[in-house]
Amino acid sequence: MNPSTAALAEAFWADLQAVRSQAPLVHNITNFVVMNYSANALLAVGASPVMAHAHDEVQDMAAIAGALVLNIGTLEPAWIRSMQLALARARERGIPVVLDPVGAGATPYRNRALGELLQSGAPSVVRGNGSEIMSVAGLAAATRGVDSSASSSEAVDAARALARDLKAVVCVSGADDHVLDAGGRWLSLANGDPWMTRVTGVGCSASALVGAFAAVQPDAWRATAAAMAVLGVVGELATERTRAVGAGVGRLQLELLDGLQLLGQDEFVARLKVRQHA
Amino acid sequence: MNPSTAALAEAFWADLQAVRSQAPLVHNITNFVVMNYSANALLAVGASPVMAHAHDEVQDMAAIAGALVLNIGTLEPAWIRSMQLALARARERGIPVVLDPVGAGATPYRNRALGELLQSGAPSVVRGNGSEIMSVAGLAAATRGVDSSASSSEAVDAARALARDLKAVVCVSGADDHVLDAGGRWLSLANGDPWMTRVTGVGCSASALVGAFAAVQPDAWRATAAAMAVLGVVGELATERTRAVGAGVGRLQLELLDGLQLLGQDEFVARLKVRQHA
Amino acid sequence: MNPSTAALAEAFWADLQAVRSQAPLVHNITNFVVMNYSANALLAVGASPVMAHAHDEVQDMAAIAGALVLNIGTLEPAWIRSMQLALARARERGIPVVLDPVGAGATPYRNRALGELLQSGAPSVVRGNGSEIMSVAGLAAATRGVDSSASSSEAVDAARALARDLKAVVCVSGADDHVLDAGGRWLSLANGDPWMTRVTGVGCSASALVGAFAAVQPDAWRATAAAMAVLGVVGELATERTRAVGAGVGRLQLELLDGLQLLGQDEFVARLKVRQHA
Repeated sequence: MNPSTAALAEAFWADLQAVRSQAPLVHNITNFVVMNYSANALLAVGASPVMAHAHDEVQDMAAIAGALVLNIGTLEPAWIRSMQLALARARERGIPVVLDPVGAGATPYRNRALGELLQSGAPSVVRGNGSEIMSVAGLAAATRGVDSSASSSEAVDAARALARDLKAVVCVSGADDHVLDAGGRWLSLANGDPWMTRVTGVGCSASALVGAFAAVQPDAWRATAAAMAVLGVVGELATERTRAVGAGVGRLQLELLDGLQLLGQDEFVARLKVRQHA
Repeated sequence: MNPSTAALAEAFWADLQAVRSQAPLVHNITNFVVMNYSANALLAVGASPVMAHAHDEVQDMAAIAGALVLNIGTLEPAWIRSMQLALARARERGIPVVLDPVGAGATPYRNRALGELLQSGAPSVVRGNGSEIMSVAGLAAATRGVDSSASSSEAVDAARALARDLKAVVCVSGADDHVLDAGGRWLSLANGDPWMTRVTGVGCSASALVGAFAAVQPDAWRATAAAMAVLGVVGELATERTRAVGAGVGRLQLELLDGLQLLGQDEFVARLKVRQHA
Repeated sequence: MNPSTAALAEAFWADLQAVRSQAPLVHNITNFVVMNYSANALLAVGASPVMAHAHDEVQDMAAIAGALVLNIGTLEPAWIRSMQLALARARERGIPVVLDPVGAGATPYRNRALGELLQSGAPSVVRGNGSEIMSVAGLAAATRGVDSSASSSEAVDAARALARDLKAVVCVSGADDHVLDAGGRWLSLANGDPWMTRVTGVGCSASALVGAFAAVQPDAWRATAAAMAVLGVVGELATERTRAVGAGVGRLQLELLDGLQLLGQDEFVARLKVRQHA
């Protein structure tokens, strides 16, 4: 029998409390567009963000962080090198590494860069939208020689193949979020609101939050699900509050941060829509 | 006889609806200060932003975009090269290119960089404040050998000369916005509020919005006027709402984004102050 | 006898009025995370921000600015060189230079970079939290051969030693802010709220505001105290307003900017908690 929603809600809530009480240091090598919003999302949820990318510094920073978050949004060669250096150190230390493959598949360069990055080591978690995950699954397959079913047209199938191939947790975001691991665990979340896609950096902040949760919860699959669950419920409540006062996606930015800080257990439990598949 | 305000309002509104329904992809190579706000402004109005500047990627990104927006705010040599590469590809494809010459005239380096950029190809639209446009007009004149009347002390005269010289649309922003083209069309807009200049990136977002409108409206002069009209009306309404609750330029940031998303036709038509000159 | 709170409040208020009326140009070479918020804080308080870092431009930009603000948050070698070039020109011109040693002590690279920067010239003001100031004090001591008491475990003692060593004003931010100079002046401020540390860039914006105040008030110690006093009172009021409507650190971002713009003399004087030590 699968865990009940109540049991999952309790587990996810405990993880949020752990983030709030432990304030893990999350090292982000991320894109210029979302640096500020990601830092604010991490602060709001109770974590401690640091952004650093100098080649001479990233290994030392990764050495004191509780998690590493890599985001290729505005990538360039020097930053890919920063990511590789930090990834190697994080793997040595055994801290979780979250990869957000922003725009995977959009250009050949982006795919080459992702391929190079994956050769430096596998992340613990990959989080992206359907097309990004399908693109990375195809790359991972191509570079590692697995069969072409990895480039399946279904994002969840692609996520499953990618999880197996990288021995990592994979999260596909969308109307529903799906969180899968290499061992076959699969969980779906149905909170959130389409307006969340109209605030830049909400997806990237999701990846940053996954880093914060994975820093305090050793089961990366559960940590990923907890972070996505919290953001989904917060996003749903924030969008409702925003619409209730006749406001729009500008106001929503702040309501999301307020919600990450102030979310209470009762509203989290009451709202959470989660299903763990057999 | 010139088009009536009603006819222009109808045309501009149709362009906004086209942005909202077509969600054009706008490729931005812009400055670090405004990347986040520009992305949010594009999302709020219904467009789809992408920021990418790697030399190995910008041509491929420009190849899938509906418009290219270049902004030299925090320029450095590698970024000027990114802009040149993207500009060349955009010109080949015939997609509109908007140039925001932030700080033109402030330093010799900035002028040299703008000169190099203009040598790579003419943008479709140049949007800046009076001193920026006058500075670019002087540069364009100097580098192309036209007479010195291009450096006239009147911004509108400079804009007219620059439009003729580059065969481009030129928009001078200020208390009134003026939109001119190489064929002599000239239109003035009188909406907006001085508080808009106290939120960083509103001018830069104006250029990004021009890109979104030009991606869906082939007449770049009309597209520029429509984008500036929408932003002017939104800014005026947003500032009124902000002042009405005793708030300031912090709150205004969000009200502007809310307005870009939620602006209705009736308030747009009722507020628009536009005049097309004979 | 030390100046009364009333006399200090009057002096600080006069400095704020000078910023508002003179709108000094503040040249920032700062980190990617806070560029937008720093620019908005400067605009809100009435100053004029410019961000520029190209090696071929920073000296010319520093030559037209009223103050230079250096912040090493997301440092990399090319940016340290930008800071050195701008610092040298600012020193030649005699304009105030504010250094924010973000993350000092976190990594060896960060310390080396700070050491190189300090060798290029002393800033007029160093503003950081306790551990940053203690780290810089240790570096300054090591690189300049003063005795090891500079690495005292007490931040105020470290600040005093650093002030003497650099012949600069030093500000240690925290629950109380302390402002010291090389001549032994020492003033403490007790406004603010812990929530201010949960909005990214508030500390960095404090440094930017110090730049704005130092551009209009030649006594850098008084200018620093005035900027910190204004931000502390604004932060305290903004947090109260935020909590009063059940909002959180997202909303606080905007309330801070609104407060910088709209702060009135009566509430400033009524709230200010300042003490100048004998």
